[in-house]
Amino acid sequence: MRLPILILNFKSYAEAAGRRALEVAKSAERVAKELGVSIAVAPNHVDLAKVAESVEIPVFAQGAEVEAPGAYTAHVAVENLREIGVRGLILNHSEAPLQLNLLARLTARAKAIGLDVVICAPDPATSLAAAALGPHGVAVEPPELIGTGRAVSKYKPEVIVETVKRISEKFPEVAVITGAGIESGEDVAAALKLGTRGVLVASAAVKAKDHYAKIKELATPLLG
Amino acid sequence: MRLPILILNFKSYAEAAGRRALEVAKSAERVAKELGVSIAVAPNHVDLAKVAESVEIPVFAQGAEVEAPGAYTAHVAVENLREIGVRGLILNHSEAPLQLNLLARLTARAKAIGLDVVICAPDPATSLAAAALGPHGVAVEPPELIGTGRAVSKYKPEVIVETVKRISEKFPEVAVITGAGIESGEDVAAALKLGTRGVLVASAAVKAKDHYAKIKELATPLLG
Amino acid sequence: MRLPILILNFKSYAEAAGRRALEVAKSAERVAKELGVSIAVAPNHVDLAKVAESVEIPVFAQGAEVEAPGAYTAHVAVENLREIGVRGLILNHSEAPLQLNLLARLTARAKAIGLDVVICAPDPATSLAAAALGPHGVAVEPPELIGTGRAVSKYKPEVIVETVKRISEKFPEVAVITGAGIESGEDVAAALKLGTRGVLVASAAVKAKDHYAKIKELATPLLG
Amino acid sequence: MRLPILILNFKSYAEAAGRRALEVAKSAERVAKELGVSIAVAPNHVDLAKVAESVEIPVFAQGAEVEAPGAYTAHVAVENLREIGVRGLILNHSEAPLQLNLLARLTARAKAIGLDVVICAPDPATSLAAAALGPHGVAVEPPELIGTGRAVSKYKPEVIVETVKRISEKFPEVAVITGAGIESGEDVAAALKLGTRGVLVASAAVKAKDHYAKIKELATPLLG
Repeated sequence: MRLPILILNFKSYAEAAGRRALEVAKSAERVAKELGVSIAVAPNHVDLAKVAESVEIPVFAQGAEVEAPGAYTAHVAVENLREIGVRGLILNHSEAPLQLNLLARLTARAKAIGLDVVICAPDPATSLAAAALGPHGVAVEPPELIGTGRAVSKYKPEVIVETVKRISEKFPEVAVITGAGIESGEDVAAALKLGTRGVLVASAAVKAKDHYAKIKELATPLLG
Repeated sequence: MRLPILILNFKSYAEAAGRRALEVAKSAERVAKELGVSIAVAPNHVDLAKVAESVEIPVFAQGAEVEAPGAYTAHVAVENLREIGVRGLILNHSEAPLQLNLLARLTARAKAIGLDVVICAPDPATSLAAAALGPHGVAVEPPELIGTGRAVSKYKPEVIVETVKRISEKFPEVAVITGAGIESGEDVAAALKLGTRGVLVASAAVKAKDHYAKIKELATPLLG
Repeated sequence: MRLPILILNFKSYAEAAGRRALEVAKSAERVAKELGVSIAVAPNHVDLAKVAESVEIPVFAQGAEVEAPGAYTAHVAVENLREIGVRGLILNHSEAPLQLNLLARLTARAKAIGLDVVICAPDPATSLAAAALGPHGVAVEPPELIGTGRAVSKYKPEVIVETVKRISEKFPEVAVITGAGIESGEDVAAALKLGTRGVLVASAAVKAKDHYAKIKELATPLLG
Repeated sequence: MRLPILILNFKSYAEAAGRRALEVAKSAERVAKELGVSIAVAPNHVDLAKVAESVEIPVFAQGAEVEAPGAYTAHVAVENLREIGVRGLILNHSEAPLQLNLLARLTARAKAIGLDVVICAPDPATSLAAAALGPHGVAVEPPELIGTGRAVSKYKPEVIVETVKRISEKFPEVAVITGAGIESGEDVAAALKLGTRGVLVASAAVKAKDHYAKIKELATPLLG
């Protein structure tokens, strides 16, 4: 995972589903190439293979539920992700919270097969536990700000500061990322200034009328 | 859903993931065309869009967790399925059991947008409740036989008989399907003879050395 | 389960926890004796044994998660309920939704050991499926009204009417109960008039300043 | 939580349910008094209030699902535990695994109201994350040994050693406890020798013909 990074989470938004998943991913790829910055896209499960074969920037899965392939109807297995071209994995998003024990196993397996792993957590205390599992990054996201347009970096900077402090003390090898309410390039810049190494964005990019322009705005602060 | 039907569940088997998902689906399509019978394939979530654009036979999703698109990270929304070409939905497989209330909502929504819905259930009593939700089909599958090679139609025919009896009494418009341990054309024939209108098969087809030959064997009894 | 019935759900309200669980239960017992009507109380798990040994009216558990006793830490086993004096079981309350398959097993086991079973469901379609599982009663409760003080019998009478219609057609042996927003004796009377055989009440009784008076008000319409 | 400690988990075993919950708890209390060692009992939810009022040794809940009292049918609220005399809380037992985010909140709340908190975890990596949440103790229990009679301290000592090492390095204030397969005083002695400060035992104590004798055997090594 090249840092700093902008990760675009498509969730199950209609605006980034099916054919539109490819369009948003293509816009992200164009910005990544033009600016030379690190951008990853995380399409919905059902669009994963098609997006992964269509763009060169890293494609992340939004989650997984089992480690190995097998008799797991309707579950995504970590080990099936690499073959279809997926390069990273978001785990424990507040909309898809995982049991601690499973989260630990999925993280270990994903790392073992070479996927980048970002674990989401709602607050500093949980983020520290997430970091203890050894992912590449922890994304602290206060759930009450997700989707609100009120950026964590502006409305709850203390959450970011405290998370950065705790994790850098005990697990300095884990990058702190943040998200929730990020709407503008300014919000991204503020997040980076607070010590994070990237941002996780969903609705602001996905629902923008002009994906390309919005992603470019969000990615520009990564240039430093 | 054209009856009688053979539904092939790819689960998250490595043997039917990624590139191999397409191969198995293509074999199924070839058999469907050659014999003129009804066969549907149910690939893993992550292969869904690619398979759906590659074959003409019906593609089913193995499950879904939310009704409408939106801020649902790592969840599959029923309403996003149609656009990518999915035509049916398996719900409540014993490996992905659903809460009753959610199952009811997902069934209603899937029907409303024109998807075929098959609800799985482990026994006659639960099957009757599943039928009460108004799906197109109920697939009774004793979980203790799934993946064993001991076919329900041979080892627990009374489960099928009782399910057919109860459902035809109260909800005659719902087709009874069955599965679990189905390995051979003989098992399929037995299931149909017991009054079911189709079978749900996973490992026997997916793990066969020659997918085409095995699917042909399994589908032939559908000719009646 | 003697019908019509008033079932008081203590949830995990502080107002009906610990010592106060006994007080509310005693008030309910007093009303039941004075009016000669059927009232059951459903205290929180942690108060269950103490309440059950303290009152003579039926005590219901608010739920259970496994059928038989065993190595199930933090789970309530149906079969352990009878020994401590519990006589009934509420399942699938919207605040504790159960997987269909488990709900079917818990219902069957509870009936087998002689407990009264009431399954909750949010709407007519789900209620019909619940009834198909063969409980003694189905309690239809639109979740959006629970705890609001806007009684289902006044604000959504069509939900009750439709549920009564569907269940009486297919499973006439199952009693329809209702709940959600029930605040007054008038609400109870309206529910009974719509064809239900009882009501499930929580906050109105539990949070009343004078439990005895409120329970008496709610129970009086049961006299017919 | 006085260390070293023996914690007896009654699970939902019939042998420690209802009236027998009181008997086992009384035996534990007798041993605690005779030997002057620290023993806690963790009865099933439904027996909690009765046991807590009947013995003077610490009573732990086997779990909880919500923080505050309220409209949570069939859920145990942390804040309702203290009033009924509960003094500690086991969280995330492998038989009742919790989502990381909820586990963090429950731990924080339980500590805030003065309960002792022990978080269970299956292996060293997960144990470290559990310790990061700041509980009083972490109980490492390889699930494959639970209930087998093959003691973790004898069959997987490396799991204990590694857990003690990792936690003492990063979170030295958190006591490491262990469990799984503990059958005899010898097993307990071995666990303490490996650096743990207590053991979690279930079936060996609960299913013993003579509870008092078995608990005494298990507790004696705590004398050091």
